[in-house]
Order: sequence, then C-alpha cells, then structure tokens
Amino acid sequence: MSAPSSGSAVHQGMPAPQSGARIIRGGHGEYRVTDLEAARHFYVDLLGFIETERTADALYLRGYEDRDHHNIILRTAESAGAGPLSFRVQDDDDLDRLERYFIQEGLPVRSIDAGQEPGQGRAIRTQSPAGLPLEFFASMERVERMLQQFDQYRGAQVMRFDHFNCQVPHVTAEYRFFAEGLGFGCSEYTATDGGPEGQPEQLWAAWLHRKQNVHDIALMNGIGPRVHHLGFWLADTLAVLRACDILAGAGMVESIERGPGRHGISNAFFLYLRDPDGNRVEFYANDYLIADPDWEPIRWSLDDPRRATFWGHAAPASWFDEAAHCESITTGELLPTSAPQLVDRPQHVT
Amino acid sequence: MSAPSSGSAVHQGMPAPQSGARIIRGGHGEYRVTDLEAARHFYVDLLGFIETERTADALYLRGYEDRDHHNIILRTAESAGAGPLSFRVQDDDDLDRLERYFIQEGLPVRSIDAGQEPGQGRAIRTQSPAGLPLEFFASMERVERMLQQFDQYRGAQVMRFDHFNCQVPHVTAEYRFFAEGLGFGCSEYTATDGGPEGQPEQLWAAWLHRKQNVHDIALMNGIGPRVHHLGFWLADTLAVLRACDILAGAGMVESIERGPGRHGISNAFFLYLRDPDGNRVEFYANDYLIADPDWEPIRWSLDDPRRATFWGHAAPASWFDEAAHCESITTGELLPTSAPQLVDRPQHVT
Amino acid sequence: MSAPSSGSAVHQGMPAPQSGARIIRGGHGEYRVTDLEAARHFYVDLLGFIETERTADALYLRGYEDRDHHNIILRTAESAGAGPLSFRVQDDDDLDRLERYFIQEGLPVRSIDAGQEPGQGRAIRTQSPAGLPLEFFASMERVERMLQQFDQYRGAQVMRFDHFNCQVPHVTAEYRFFAEGLGFGCSEYTATDGGPEGQPEQLWAAWLHRKQNVHDIALMNGIGPRVHHLGFWLADTLAVLRACDILAGAGMVESIERGPGRHGISNAFFLYLRDPDGNRVEFYANDYLIADPDWEPIRWSLDDPRRATFWGHAAPASWFDEAAHCESITTGELLPTSAPQLVDRPQHVT
Amino acid sequence: MSAPSSGSAVHQGMPAPQSGARIIRGGHGEYRVTDLEAARHFYVDLLGFIETERTADALYLRGYEDRDHHNIILRTAESAGAGPLSFRVQDDDDLDRLERYFIQEGLPVRSIDAGQEPGQGRAIRTQSPAGLPLEFFASMERVERMLQQFDQYRGAQVMRFDHFNCQVPHVTAEYRFFAEGLGFGCSEYTATDGGPEGQPEQLWAAWLHRKQNVHDIALMNGIGPRVHHLGFWLADTLAVLRACDILAGAGMVESIERGPGRHGISNAFFLYLRDPDGNRVEFYANDYLIADPDWEPIRWSLDDPRRATFWGHAAPASWFDEAAHCESITTGELLPTSAPQLVDRPQHVT
Repeated sequence: MSAPSSGSAVHQGMPAPQSGARIIRGGHGEYRVTDLEAARHFYVDLLGFIETERTADALYLRGYEDRDHHNIILRTAESAGAGPLSFRVQDDDDLDRLERYFIQEGLPVRSIDAGQEPGQGRAIRTQSPAGLPLEFFASMERVERMLQQFDQYRGAQVMRFDHFNCQVPHVTAEYRFFAEGLGFGCSEYTATDGGPEGQPEQLWAAWLHRKQNVHDIALMNGIGPRVHHLGFWLADTLAVLRACDILAGAGMVESIERGPGRHGISNAFFLYLRDPDGNRVEFYANDYLIADPDWEPIRWSLDDPRRATFWGHAAPASWFDEAAHCESITTGELLPTSAPQLVDRPQHVT
Repeated sequence: MSAPSSGSAVHQGMPAPQSGARIIRGGHGEYRVTDLEAARHFYVDLLGFIETERTADALYLRGYEDRDHHNIILRTAESAGAGPLSFRVQDDDDLDRLERYFIQEGLPVRSIDAGQEPGQGRAIRTQSPAGLPLEFFASMERVERMLQQFDQYRGAQVMRFDHFNCQVPHVTAEYRFFAEGLGFGCSEYTATDGGPEGQPEQLWAAWLHRKQNVHDIALMNGIGPRVHHLGFWLADTLAVLRACDILAGAGMVESIERGPGRHGISNAFFLYLRDPDGNRVEFYANDYLIADPDWEPIRWSLDDPRRATFWGHAAPASWFDEAAHCESITTGELLPTSAPQLVDRPQHVT
Repeated sequence: MSAPSSGSAVHQGMPAPQSGARIIRGGHGEYRVTDLEAARHFYVDLLGFIETERTADALYLRGYEDRDHHNIILRTAESAGAGPLSFRVQDDDDLDRLERYFIQEGLPVRSIDAGQEPGQGRAIRTQSPAGLPLEFFASMERVERMLQQFDQYRGAQVMRFDHFNCQVPHVTAEYRFFAEGLGFGCSEYTATDGGPEGQPEQLWAAWLHRKQNVHDIALMNGIGPRVHHLGFWLADTLAVLRACDILAGAGMVESIERGPGRHGISNAFFLYLRDPDGNRVEFYANDYLIADPDWEPIRWSLDDPRRATFWGHAAPASWFDEAAHCESITTGELLPTSAPQLVDRPQHVT
Repeated sequence: MSAPSSGSAVHQGMPAPQSGARIIRGGHGEYRVTDLEAARHFYVDLLGFIETERTADALYLRGYEDRDHHNIILRTAESAGAGPLSFRVQDDDDLDRLERYFIQEGLPVRSIDAGQEPGQGRAIRTQSPAGLPLEFFASMERVERMLQQFDQYRGAQVMRFDHFNCQVPHVTAEYRFFAEGLGFGCSEYTATDGGPEGQPEQLWAAWLHRKQNVHDIALMNGIGPRVHHLGFWLADTLAVLRACDILAGAGMVESIERGPGRHGISNAFFLYLRDPDGNRVEFYANDYLIADPDWEPIRWSLDDPRRATFWGHAAPASWFDEAAHCESITTGELLPTSAPQLVDRPQHVT
C-alpha cells in the first residue's frame, strides 16, 4: 500500500489493506453503565431500541432494520466508559488474517470463543495503536427483523448502527492504521490550515468507511483514546426530531447535548444525546452513498464554520471535552489518556 | 339573512344565523360498533387514540391536543352506524336559542342532562331537515392535555377532531339549514356544470365551517342521511403515512380504503380508513386558515379530476357507495335513507 | 370588562373589548431595510416569499396561502427598524370604533386613505400605550392564491403571516390594553415566580390571539417599544429545516440566529432568522387550535428550561438584546426606548 | 459458481461471478424521447434534475448527490423506448474481463470509445440473454456536486440513480446471467406458489444488487425484453409527495401513474411517473442497507397483497401492460418482444 499522494493528508479511494482482511462494516458498540435499569429506560423505553436479550449484567439491543442479534451492548460497571468497537468481517479467514497482522504489528490479541458473547460467533480483539479496543467477528445469530412490524415501532425508531467516533491524540498515525492496515477509505477529512511559515496542513480528523456511506469510524484529534460517540441511523429527519420531543416530554432535557442540526461534513442531519451515565450517542439521518472506488475525499478546514454544523451553530464545549474512556481488552480496566497533538477544537468554540 | 347572491349556489362569508346561536366548532362524533374490544384495538392500540373513559357499553377517546373529555364515542350496538354529530356552542344561552329555533322550524328536540353523557354538560339534540342527528353542548369536562407528553405518543398521533362529512339526498336544502339557520360559512363547494339547455349549475357538495379552517361539516350529494366519515386532524403528512404502515404491519390492509393523497378541495393530505365495523374515519393534515369574514368560496366542477384527488387518482366505488346510517335521536333506531337528487359521483368513477 | 380573576395575571377566555372593535387577525408587518435589493434577495430569492408589487422604495410580499396583496412590507430607510403592526378588522365600522376608543384613551390617531398603501383599503394608525405603532384595516386587494401552484413553490415556502412579537418595558400595562381594550385572548403566559417575602407573581410575557391559534401578538418584557420579530407560518417542520439549508447553502449562516427547535410555549417548531439589516423573522410550524371561549391560559415559569426551548437549549444573548426600534406613526422617526421593569431574561441565559 | 441450493430459486449472498468482473453499481439509463424540449420541461423544470450538458439530440442530467456527469440520458428518437442500461465497473480491467465473458457466452459485444458519450470513458455494450441492452464503463467525468447547494435545489430534488427494473419473458434464465455471470446478489424475490400436483415454485421476479442496498436491477416476469422503469433515489418521503404536488400543480396529473405508497418488497416509499413519451420513472426513498455477505434473500408470494403495495392497493393494469421497448446495441432499432412464461400479474390485478 502506497502512502497518500504528495500533498494530501489522506489516500484517494479504498486502499488494499496490509492485513488482507475484508472488513464489512461497523457492527456494534458497547457502553458501560452504572444502573442497567436506568439505561434500559433510556435506550429501550424512551429511544425505542429493541431488547433482544438481557443477561445478569448486560442488555443486548438492536434496531428496526437489524437481522443481527444486537447493535449495542450495555454492560453494568462501576463507571461509564466504552468496551470494544466491534466490526463485522467477511468470514472466519479474515479473523485469522487480522490475528496474524496484529501480532506482526506488535499489537495485543485476544480470542473470543463463539457464544462467549450472546449471539456472536468467534471473534478476536486488539487494541489499536492509539489504544482503542477493537473487536472483529464474522457471524452473528439471526433474529427477527422488525422493519415492517410498524405496529410495534416505538420511540425514535433507530434503524441500525452506523458508526464509531473516537478521539485520539495523534490522528495521522491512527488514520494510517485504519487506512493502510485495515483498508478503510476516507470519505471526508478535516485539516488544519498550513502555517504562516510554510508548515504543511495536518490531519485533524478523518471519516473512514468500509460500507458504502460516509463512515464506519471517525477519528478526531482530542484527548484519547476515547470513544466520543456511537452513531445510529434513523430513517428521516423527523425521527431525529421525535427523539428530542420524547426526551423533553419525559423530563430529560439534560440528555440533549447538541443538535438537531446538519453536519457540513457528511451532510447528515444529527442529534447528540447523553445517556444517564453520560455516554454519548448520535442519531443520524440522510448522508450519501459512496460506492465508487475512485472517491476523492472532501477536505474541510478546521475553522470553517459550516464544517461541524452546516447552519453555523458552534458545538458546546462539553462536546469537545467529554467522551468515554476505553477499556483494556486484557484487563477490562479503563485506559489512561494523553493530550492531543493539535489544538482540540475550532477557533470559534472557546 | 339574505339568500346567496344571484348566480351563486352559496353565500360569501359567514352568514348571521337565523337561530342566533354561536356555534364554535364540531366537537365529537359517535359510531356504533358490534365488538367494543375490536374497536378499542383499532382506535386505541393501533391508531393511538387516548382512552379517557370506558363504560359498560362505550369508549370515550380523545387526541393528543385535546383538553376535552372526548372527541369520539364508540358505543356497542347490533350493527354499525352513526350517533349524533356533536357541536360545541359558546355557552348555555346558545342551547336555548337553538331549542327555540328548532321548535320554530318544526324539528324534533331532545334535551340531554348534564352528565347523561360522561364528561359532557347539558346538551340538546335535533334531527336536521335531511335527518342527520345533531347534538349541541356548551361545556365539557377538562382532562389532561397530552400535547407535550411526547414520550407517551403512540400510533398515528391523532391531534383533534376536525369535521363531519355527510351524504344527503338534497344538498341545497341542507346547505341552507346549516348556512342560514346555523351560521356556517362555506369555504369550498362542488357544483355540477350547467346543462346544455341553459339549466343552472346545482350544488353537489359544500364544505362548511365555524372554526377557522376549511370545515366542521361537509355535505355531499348521495344516498342519505348518512355519515360518510369523521375527520381527524394530524400534525403532518408523515403521521398520515404512519397510519398506513401501522395498519399494514398489523395485517389490516383491508382497513385502508383510499389514500394517502391530497385533496384538491381543502388542499389537505388525506387517508380514509374503515374500522372493523366498516365505519369510516379520515386522517387529515395541512389544510389552511380561513379567518377573514369576506372569504369567497372556491368553486370546483364535479368532473374536475383534481377536485377529489389533486393527483388525479379516482376514489374507489366503495367510497361513494358505503356510509354509516344515522340513528334517530328519539328511538335510537337507524333511519331509512333516500336516493340522491343528483348523480352521485364524478364521471371518471364508474 | 372585568379585571383578571383574583390571583391570576391574565384573563380567561377572550374578553369583550372596551373598544367594541372586532379585530380578526394580525395581517402584515413592515421592516425598514437599507438595501432593497439585498432584502429582495433574502426574502424572495432565498426564503421564497412571493413578490406582489414593487414600488420605488418598497416591496410588498406574500405567502403561498395568501389571497391578500401582502403580508410583509420592506421599505427603504436609512436604518433598520419596524413600521406599523397591521391588523385586519371585520369591517369599516370597526375602524370607526377603534378611532373613538383611541381618542378616548388619549392615544394618537392617524388616518390612512384607501390606496395610500398599495393594495390596502382605508386604515387607521395609533401608537399603543407602550409606543408600538399599530395599524388597522378592513379590506385588502385580492390577488392570486398560489397554494396549489406547487410547481412554482420556491425556498422555505412561507404560507402566511402568523404573529408579531414585541418587547415592552411594562408587560402588564400593555397586556391590559390588548386584552381589555382590544379583546385579545391570552393563550399562554410567562410569570416570574413570587418573591420570598410574599410578593405576587408578575406578568413577564403574554401570547395573545384573535384568530384561532396561539397568537397574533406576543408581548415580552424587555427594552421597548421594540418589534422582536415577525412570525410566519410554514406547513411543516421540514420546511423550517429547508430554510436553514438554503441560507447555509447560499453562504449566509450568520443569518441563522436561533433554532431550529421546539418552543415549550405554543409547542411550535421554530427558527429565528436575521435579515441583511438585522431585522428578525420567525419561521413557525405546528402549534394548535384554540377555538373555545373558555380556554384557560397556560402558565409558564420564567426559569423553566423547557419554556422557551422545549429541548432545553438556551437562546443566544442576541435574541434578548437585539430587536427592531419602532417608528412613530406621525413622524416616521424611530422612537426612544426604556429599560424593562423586570429582569429581561431567564437565569440560565447570562 | 454453484447453482442455488436445493429448494431455493435464488442464491444466498453475492455469488463470485464467472466473468470475474467487479461491477460497482447501476450508473445511468437512457430513454428515447420524441420532443426533447417537452422532456426537458418534465425532467428539469418540474422534477428538478440538473442539466449537465445538452447536445444536438440529447440531454445529460444528474441528481443533487452526483459527482458524475449524468445519471440519465434523454435522446431524440422517432418513438419512445430505452437505450442501454449502464453499469459502473471497478476499472478498465473489468471491461476486458466482461468482453471475454460475453464473447465466450456468444453474446454480441460493441466497444464505445472514451468520449463517444459525453463525459464517459471507454465502455463496452452487450445484449443480455433476454435482449436487454447493457453498457459497462469504468470512469466518468467529474462535475460539481450540488449536494450542499441547497439554495439551488428545485423540484423533487432527485439525489441519484438507484436501479433499473426490466420485464423479461423468462426470469430464471436472466437471473442466472446476472447472478452467476455478473455476480449480482439477490435481496428479495417473488415466487409463484407451487402447484397443486407438487410442481415447484417458480421465480417470478428478483431484486438484484451490487451496491449495498436492495437493488441495481430488478427482473420481473412479463412481455420482454422491456425496461419497466428507471428508479431514482430521493432523500425522504416528503420529496416523493412533492413530486405529485408539482406535477398536479402544473396540470400534468396524467403523468402520475401509481403511488405514492410503500412497497412490501424493499420497504421503499415509491411513486411511478410517466414522462411525456410514456417512459416510466420511479421515485424512491427509504429502503435499507445490505452490506453483509450472508444476506438471506426475502421471499414473497406473488399473490401476497402486501408484496407490491404494502398498504394493499393494487397497481393499475397499465403498470403491468406498458413498458419501454429496448434498442439493439448494434442497429439502434427497437427489439421485438416475447410473451412471458408465467402469469404476468397477481390474481388481484385483473
């Protein structure tokens, strides 16, 4: 895999990965919650996630479009935080390819037997160069798809998982792991403007995808490794507005952190919510298709006011300051974080 | 009260009524159902009406915007059919004025004591010249308005009652009762085109209002007296589409009779449903404001394809053929009907 | 007319007015603009208002539902500011009644001949006790209604004028003029919480209506007399979102001041825009019907976070600080303002 | 490539193609029109397609999400009809692979030089076993993407091309060409119910995809080869409704053939339009993501009333009877058609 072409911070198109693995899409995320019942009320009763299974310490939820067992796991813990970011791969061979690649790169590897996680086949886990806990699986138990059971729709009617968004101190290094090692294409990216004395632009954030829309994972410059949010797909903008109404109607306005609004990046209509433990989810509608192999990434300047919110509103400081710390795949303890290498927010957010 | 100006089938503006009564708006309708539990499943579980009260033989339901006790009554009976069309008046004096007027006009009058209907104050009933059972009340018990309890919204999220639509054999006579006797203004109307030998146009249907939108009651030429449908207001077009999805998802596609579509008349987005007994309800969004006293009624030709469905689709024959027979206000028996004076449907519906 | 009942800051229902006038609805507003061509680009090209007439120094625009000649006037002036708030009355007799009433109350009166304003019949003007410039007219030239000319819809598809919102230093006094003098009913209101030593609550803002929705004019405590915004009605929430997209797409994000969001008060979905001169307009969808004479006003506490924005977002400081100064009806000069009697914003906006 | 597993009419997942070609997605369609100006009015002025280029005899249009030069070609001809169905492939090697495969299969091949079609690189054409004219290209000229130029949005705001829908006399044979030869996966399919004497089910229609949603091409049993419609993607259901309003507002109700409604198959919200020459386009929103390689096709019975229209409405007979005849890739003449092998519509459409 060649480096980005001269003068660009990112590759054009979807690189052939050094690992040789065929990653399909982001599959599901995991949040730590201190009160499983409060989490169930938020995610299931109010937002309308479908409960597939409940164990002694965890909830496995899915959306209305899902055939898979779950798209988010909520697990009891002593504090908020994020478990593995789990990606679907083509088949079991890809798990072997990934294991070899991670070992070669000096990254830790942990095997997860089929059934160790309810509904999920064999999986492997690693910790990315920046410390993000990653999981890869090739199969999941099929459950009833509720897409046309409209009489049972509730809440904000989340359709499916869409993406992970993570903060890392050094975006360029993490970007190269995902692009060159794992084969993610870059749909859009944010760069700092070059310096007055001829310094080159630097990669501030990158939206990376394997499935055919804007992203499966975004990497943003910030204190990290942290999971900034799990992004879920809704069918239309009105479903996003409904989430606001439901939460406010239930007296939980404090869970509405930012939005609704439109992102300049991705063009999507967005809303950011904080669950009762402060873990962040994004509800997201209306981005666009990227199917072609010669997609040219869209560049945004960090200080363009339409970049983050196309309508010009600044994000609140909490949106930059707060995010979920990540678990170690070996100990389950939350990992320490480091300061970012670049300024951590646009000039207009102070 | 003067007659319509020369050459027009309808009055301009809102006539000063001979009765002197100040009618405010259509308030609630009543349908006879043969299986109260099946009706509850349709109206409450699927369509999302709010159940205010249940008695031994009847359900009293309301919408999300309502402060009043109910906007529809479903009452157990041996066959389908329609009970009184109930209108809110300004205050109790208006009930006295109406009583005097109906007696003077030779119409039957029946007094209903406060509380005889759950949640409703004193009322009077009559039978219109065409035989429609009418009720008038001045006060209703106030219940909790659910408008901002978005976390409890269900189904198609009916907001409020909007209008009655009735078939009568002789529209012109019934129109004059509502316009000149009761003070209803005409927003839009349908006329037959004048005949080849100079016959004048004839009034085929009229949309009549007291509140400030297109109608509280519509009168259509047809076998009558019959209640064609009760119309309910929804907040937007997507709520109308949701009703279709919910019913189809629940395996009840046969209850979707016509629509969704846009009416040329009224400009509203509509959907016609049949309850398990065949009684018809309309879900309706997006008409327009008529506040001005000099509103000039909009004339439509019966055979204009955009009149009934702005997008050109013909209504099914059942929409013209079938409607609820009306109860006598004295015996509760269903009244006989007569054939209409004019052709009962446009040429393009055969 | 009796005062509000003991313990309440506002009347219940719609008072019988001392003036005897039958005001129908808010009709149109007028803004001063320094560059008529820039204003035309903003209101017509981008937002989609329909241009009815252009004179040497003014534009007369309307919405897609309007039959009347205009619902907003944009007039060239040396600075931004607001001309008369113009209300439709029942007929010419009401103009006479109002003239007598204003003279009796010691308010200035100015007669406007028919045709002096393009498209408008005879009118009279006054200055309210707080100094708001008011106009009343009984007839307006009828123009083509574009409601079903969907092929010609552009921009945010403004349907009609909805309301005026004004800041005045002493809300209680101005409220009594509109309620007791002019017969406006109160739909909702904001009161300060009573003081610790038994001080009564004070009226901070009132939403007042003559037509059958939440308001034709709102009065808010603040530096005044100032016109805070002109409110326009859109058919649905998506039309409101479209306004944001259009302005951002055209590179005018700075014109988006607040929203989109839902008001707790009125339940409406809102967006506040600033025209090129800083005059403010609100786009507004989905409030509710108030037809009944016994409507009980809804009380909100000033510091309830869901009052102004149901989803909890605070309004920006500019939304409280900035508003259009008002013209004198006699000189056309902008009037001086006074400081408000109460705190001018909630505690959470600082 | 193995045959479908025993007992199923279709393959599970996306087969490895015999041709070895990597087809990316359906790219653009071509319709013959007898009056280019009338076609431009319909597609550009009313429906809002963006005009990229106009030559002496053709229009090249695109959608708001497109970076490519065009997604539909309208070409002057003596009669209505369909030109090539054009698919994007990964790169030029795939054109070579396809050429070898078509020759090996005895299918005609025609080379199209780069630039022969405005904006398009080298391409090859063939005629499918059923006679559908197919084109494959690897590159297209990049033009300005209008996605965030919301101020320039018009009409129904078509975002992108989605799929071809074709009628062929023998679906099973054509399905095997697309699945086994070209590597299309099957998302959903319609089968006839098995006969009373143990006859197996037969494939009546198949929805086939390469990109990650329900289809790039659908094959339906019917008189063929014919192009039934070109399907375009819209951002939401309201954009679909807007198309109806625009056409009706412009007095072209006769161009609205079927819908709006929801398909059981694909779950999408649909509308079928006929252009001034009778060529059919579908506007389409809200299907679902298929990214996983182990997708199990969804089976529908031909006579399930929710299959074609989830809400139960039957399609009009014209929808089954009429479709565009196809051009020969060698002569440009319209090809003769054959009768279908199976019954050509459900029992409830007669």
